[in-house]
Amino acid sequence: MAGWRRAGEFELIARHFAPLAAAEPGAIGLLDDAAVLALGRAGALVVTVDAMVAGVHFPPDDPPDLVARKLLRVSLSDLAAMGAQGRAYLLAAALPRGIDEDWVAAFCRGLATDQPIFGVTLVGGDTVATDGPLTLSLTAMGELGEGDALHRAGAREGDDIYVSGTIGDAALGLKALGGAYPDLAPEDRAFLIDRYRVPRPRVALGPRLAGLAHAAVDISDGLVADLGHVCAASRLGAAIEAARVPLSSAARAALGAEGAASPAVLSGGDDYELLFTAERAAAEALAALAVDLALMLTPIGRMTGGRGVTVLDPAGLAVKNMGAGGYRHF
Amino acid sequence: MAGWRRAGEFELIARHFAPLAAAEPGAIGLLDDAAVLALGRAGALVVTVDAMVAGVHFPPDDPPDLVARKLLRVSLSDLAAMGAQGRAYLLAAALPRGIDEDWVAAFCRGLATDQPIFGVTLVGGDTVATDGPLTLSLTAMGELGEGDALHRAGAREGDDIYVSGTIGDAALGLKALGGAYPDLAPEDRAFLIDRYRVPRPRVALGPRLAGLAHAAVDISDGLVADLGHVCAASRLGAAIEAARVPLSSAARAALGAEGAASPAVLSGGDDYELLFTAERAAAEALAALAVDLALMLTPIGRMTGGRGVTVLDPAGLAVKNMGAGGYRHF
Repeated sequence: MAGWRRAGEFELIARHFAPLAAAEPGAIGLLDDAAVLALGRAGALVVTVDAMVAGVHFPPDDPPDLVARKLLRVSLSDLAAMGAQGRAYLLAAALPRGIDEDWVAAFCRGLATDQPIFGVTLVGGDTVATDGPLTLSLTAMGELGEGDALHRAGAREGDDIYVSGTIGDAALGLKALGGAYPDLAPEDRAFLIDRYRVPRPRVALGPRLAGLAHAAVDISDGLVADLGHVCAASRLGAAIEAARVPLSSAARAALGAEGAASPAVLSGGDDYELLFTAERAAAEALAALAVDLALMLTPIGRMTGGRGVTVLDPAGLAVKNMGAGGYRHF
Repeated sequence: MAGWRRAGEFELIARHFAPLAAAEPGAIGLLDDAAVLALGRAGALVVTVDAMVAGVHFPPDDPPDLVARKLLRVSLSDLAAMGAQGRAYLLAAALPRGIDEDWVAAFCRGLATDQPIFGVTLVGGDTVATDGPLTLSLTAMGELGEGDALHRAGAREGDDIYVSGTIGDAALGLKALGGAYPDLAPEDRAFLIDRYRVPRPRVALGPRLAGLAHAAVDISDGLVADLGHVCAASRLGAAIEAARVPLSSAARAALGAEGAASPAVLSGGDDYELLFTAERAAAEALAALAVDLALMLTPIGRMTGGRGVTVLDPAGLAVKNMGAGGYRHF
């Protein structure tokens, strides 16, 4: 069986997908039974898969290039959360019969835009027909640098909890797309929507956290939910201060007095920032790293005994305890 | 985002999928952002992805364990055709809302049956909901042994063309499932149907062909079609003798006088035998390998100049020339 060579799909592959594989000799132009990848560092491969369905994970009329870029970036975010750098990816696409070739072309243009940004190449795939909605899955492969992989289970009691960038923008962008915040300035609205549509996986940060962070996760399900995953895996609790959660100016404008205690910030997903824990002694090195990467790294709380995530107000009182199972956003 | 951890799916994963990952520490119980795979041989990873849609690639009421085993085996066949040994796989599943958990359980039992047979382990995945048909994709990763990877493009003029096992069984099994060959003995019918439903990827053969074969492909699209792929990639032609194509006794019983010239043999797909080319000097080593593996390796023709696949009758006359583009079976 295998990639890309069912009758009638040859042309589609040759025209749109094969160019995405041109830079990687091991992809063999997507024409062989499998790809052969020569890995840089002996023996350490990091691999993840993500799936998306039209009508479930994105509106069917979303711009195809943005669908492609989001699918790829979401997987690269997973690699970053493990401390790995993306290297190559495979794509499986179940395409509705009679899909417009323009859609495929635009989808591939999105991938072509992102490949050089992230240094990744398509190395294989499979396209099949479906009677249902467009269904995509992407397998991303990455390599570790000098350090070991970062896991969710590595947090220690007393660790500071950090997040990169700003939190809540994507969830607010989704709400803005739905018509919320009608009085928001156009540039703030555009910023938030863009953060929802085109995540910025922290690919430069992840590999640099090796040796500094004890645990890491990317914020996809929501700040409290993903911190809950770290707590569960590490068998610890966590307390974060809502007021310390970093917000973009656009998010502040949208939220007004509600600020970081908003569910959009604490529970909204799709930010694809990294959350990590590190001991106090790493604070200086992390501050230097933030300067080096021109990326905010903000301590927002601490790993504790017990279980579950507690969110504290400015007076240090618990406003929420999400319980041992972590927060669930649907 | 990433594997297996959306709210509501935790239990499904913990109950059915996580046990499949238990043997591989790098899978981290399917609970982290990605898996970390320690590879045996520095720097050589072989990777492929295959997708299947219910109602397109298998009837929705097919036994789920057989669907799982076929999906896995088809990918392992791709690895074998590259000379690689399967090591691990990732699964993406778009599940119709309200799917019976029994279906998932049976599907995973199928994977659990095959994992020890092939020495592979689930290392990651993603399950998502869909409003459409069940859609599966499986990414298989393998390692090369001492030899280099086998490619389709390596055939040389004058090479003998070999196939493993017997050809046409799967296509005949599919026809038998549809009611063909009513007079066939029950054991022959069962044999053919089983060959259609549960492919035997030639995982022991593939890695042993390194250094012996010049080119290899697995027979998924059909004998002539896949040989056509080798011809196209190697910029050569091929002539095979229909009478030399090896048939099982069940296939002979089904085909009667028609024999190997039947379209079911020449053009039927899904056999997942290996087709490879080797120079005449390798014949003795290949005969010894066949004995060692208890697997027929049958020369059926030769790589030639020109283009396309020619099928010869016993008198050496061309009965078919499939043209430079290879045969297309739908």
